[in-house]
Amino acid sequence: MNQRGAADGCGEPQGFRRHGGAPFTVSVVLPAGGTGERTGLPTPKQFCTVLNRPLISYTIQAFERLSWIQHIVVVVAGESNALMTDIIQRFQHTKVRVVSGGATRHRSIFNGVRALDAGKSGATPDVVIIHDAVRPFVEEDFLFEIAMAAKENGASGAIRPLVSTVIATSSEDYLDHSLERSKYRASEMPQGFLYHVIYQAYQKCSEVDFDFGTECLQLALQHTGTQAKLIEGPPTLWKVTYKRDLAAAESIIKESLCGSACIISDGSERSRELGQCLQRVMGSFDMELDVLPDVIGDASCLSKEWNFIQLSVNGSGLPEVEETVRALEAANRALLHPIVVVWVRFDTSDGLSIMETGARPLLLVELASAAKLQNILLYGIHLHFSEKDAGWSDGSVKRLAELTYTLIHDRNAILAGQMLHA
Amino acid sequence: MNQRGAADGCGEPQGFRRHGGAPFTVSVVLPAGGTGERTGLPTPKQFCTVLNRPLISYTIQAFERLSWIQHIVVVVAGESNALMTDIIQRFQHTKVRVVSGGATRHRSIFNGVRALDAGKSGATPDVVIIHDAVRPFVEEDFLFEIAMAAKENGASGAIRPLVSTVIATSSEDYLDHSLERSKYRASEMPQGFLYHVIYQAYQKCSEVDFDFGTECLQLALQHTGTQAKLIEGPPTLWKVTYKRDLAAAESIIKESLCGSACIISDGSERSRELGQCLQRVMGSFDMELDVLPDVIGDASCLSKEWNFIQLSVNGSGLPEVEETVRALEAANRALLHPIVVVWVRFDTSDGLSIMETGARPLLLVELASAAKLQNILLYGIHLHFSEKDAGWSDGSVKRLAELTYTLIHDRNAILAGQMLHA
Ligand SMILES: [Mg+2]
Ligand SMILES: [Mg+2]
Repeated sequence: MNQRGAADGCGEPQGFRRHGGAPFTVSVVLPAGGTGERTGLPTPKQFCTVLNRPLISYTIQAFERLSWIQHIVVVVAGESNALMTDIIQRFQHTKVRVVSGGATRHRSIFNGVRALDAGKSGATPDVVIIHDAVRPFVEEDFLFEIAMAAKENGASGAIRPLVSTVIATSSEDYLDHSLERSKYRASEMPQGFLYHVIYQAYQKCSEVDFDFGTECLQLALQHTGTQAKLIEGPPTLWKVTYKRDLAAAESIIKESLCGSACIISDGSERSRELGQCLQRVMGSFDMELDVLPDVIGDASCLSKEWNFIQLSVNGSGLPEVEETVRALEAANRALLHPIVVVWVRFDTSDGLSIMETGARPLLLVELASAAKLQNILLYGIHLHFSEKDAGWSDGSVKRLAELTYTLIHDRNAILAGQMLHA
Repeated sequence: MNQRGAADGCGEPQGFRRHGGAPFTVSVVLPAGGTGERTGLPTPKQFCTVLNRPLISYTIQAFERLSWIQHIVVVVAGESNALMTDIIQRFQHTKVRVVSGGATRHRSIFNGVRALDAGKSGATPDVVIIHDAVRPFVEEDFLFEIAMAAKENGASGAIRPLVSTVIATSSEDYLDHSLERSKYRASEMPQGFLYHVIYQAYQKCSEVDFDFGTECLQLALQHTGTQAKLIEGPPTLWKVTYKRDLAAAESIIKESLCGSACIISDGSERSRELGQCLQRVMGSFDMELDVLPDVIGDASCLSKEWNFIQLSVNGSGLPEVEETVRALEAANRALLHPIVVVWVRFDTSDGLSIMETGARPLLLVELASAAKLQNILLYGIHLHFSEKDAGWSDGSVKRLAELTYTLIHDRNAILAGQMLHA
């Protein structure tokens, strides 16, 4: 998710295609019944929203965008059923089925596994991937590795180096001994299983396993003799557990959305110059900018980009901004992430002060309110200089770039419709 | 740090005072020589800035504010010596001494412990607390528990429940077995030691211990027979390790600064009414507001508050804003955290549109630029209504509250000097 391609949800399928087609079928079980007590928030963490969208929808999307994933079974506590169904409709998820969880994590996962049974979903998958709803940043290449290793070994799982030393305690909370870190790993998600391995492991489970077992890999070992292949995963696999993790997740998602922007010039010489100048300065923020004459004519920009900077010199420019917003709405582009449109109004009129030209047109307020309902965040920035000067000053372009970057990066819906000054 | 008192750095000492004076002396060693490869950032994470201040300064402050902490020895890699000295001067830390680290974590900690030797710092402390520079949110009550337990048991350490299942791997990356979670804990920081215990543990250390040992508690057990008392700490003790953790730390610090604000009315009836109305609405954001006639007369507000909302009805109001900013500068109030001042300009003039009254006065730009150099972030919000209406609409006060809250919460320096519209 911290790469551009991962966030756009419309990249080419890699994985199986690159490796020569899908040699077996893969489906997913996402246990999402947790209550999230540890976040300190009233909402279970998988349903907490980041940029106005529940975390679980990001996790679903991480799988749904992969052509080689067939079905995604989300297992929720009974009382969350309606909420989950609403999320699926609102974000137009297509591969998801919702089933009700059991009293413990293992009972819930088994419910999910059973829901993938041939009789219920058409065809039993060869491999089942089990993942946490609160680990939204899983990448295709790693999922591919897990699926392949599960096919070959019967079971596979993500591991990470231990962050802290693990110690054994005596009965009365005194140090007994510390473990040698190099021999142990943290077991994370995703994990992969041949369908019959995970099914059999749960069928043979005792009630104690169902109630207190923590590790699917251990159940597969114990009940089917399958020794799981362990694969070190990236740090982005971490589990959103505390309130602070929601802030971390938000920052990763925001970063993934601000790697590039599309500058739409109004066709004038001045506007092209300003666009090129802005392109240079924004490079220092690690943001790539394409300069285009208009957005409507460029389908690739309209279908991929999360950020648009529309330049207008001396004219109002708002009708063109409205056109851009309409095109984005028509393409249903802001379904998964808010899109930012920054209207840069550039004024070269002499004699008029900021007091007179820099105010906020009411049309901007109205346009921004309407756009916000479609998840499109529209802001204005006013930039003035006198024709008597040689051109814009480095200082004002730098301020313009900083303001533009901060608006794009922060995606703050409260500031939509505001007119800032560079 | 996520409580109001923890952030202001000027609360009453709790701990020893509450428990009846300081029965023994306590000093601190902060190893800060890490290179921070895992953050994916060029700067070691302890020197990464959050709200314009390096993380290590927050950690130092967490100890320095406690009257019962004598000395803080920061152990840095040789090449960071000048940087560290600069940080101490810039943020006016008074209890800190910098010493150079060794080749490994244990050699560095031992250097720090030796620097607390009587010959070098006046008096050897009874108890040494060892903490990580990248765990800035340690609270006084927990430090007190650790110090007391070290005094009583010779050694003590913070533990946390394991977040992930810990598994033993076979030599070829296959699952061997998983550990029973209830018998193990993650060992965290801070840890406490009687001075002679930690000193002796290191003196008896082998070269292998110095180079590969991970756990001070284990060394104390092995070389002095001291069985450490383990105390479960809060989740805020987590270690800032990855880039995402910096975002998490920033969100905790920002939350800690936006729990309350001080409204300064201009004395007019209208302004008092607006203040009370704002007070009610901001309550829904969990922000407590005090309404005052002016800031200069109220020393407690000036010395404690991180956020000021200055109301002016129909007049310019900027001279009063300048007075507030000057008072805050004179009190050196924004040394540790940026202070936010929101100037709310409230317009009741009929016939004048936003186009005419809502523009940004150049004086605001100049004031904000000067204030920013002192770590004071000044923003303007314009609110207009016609006298013909009964009063302000609920909608515009709600927008005012949302904008004010977002400015206070985000503390975005790039937006300082902007004039927003409610
Ligand atoms: Mg793909
Ligand atoms: Mg105190």
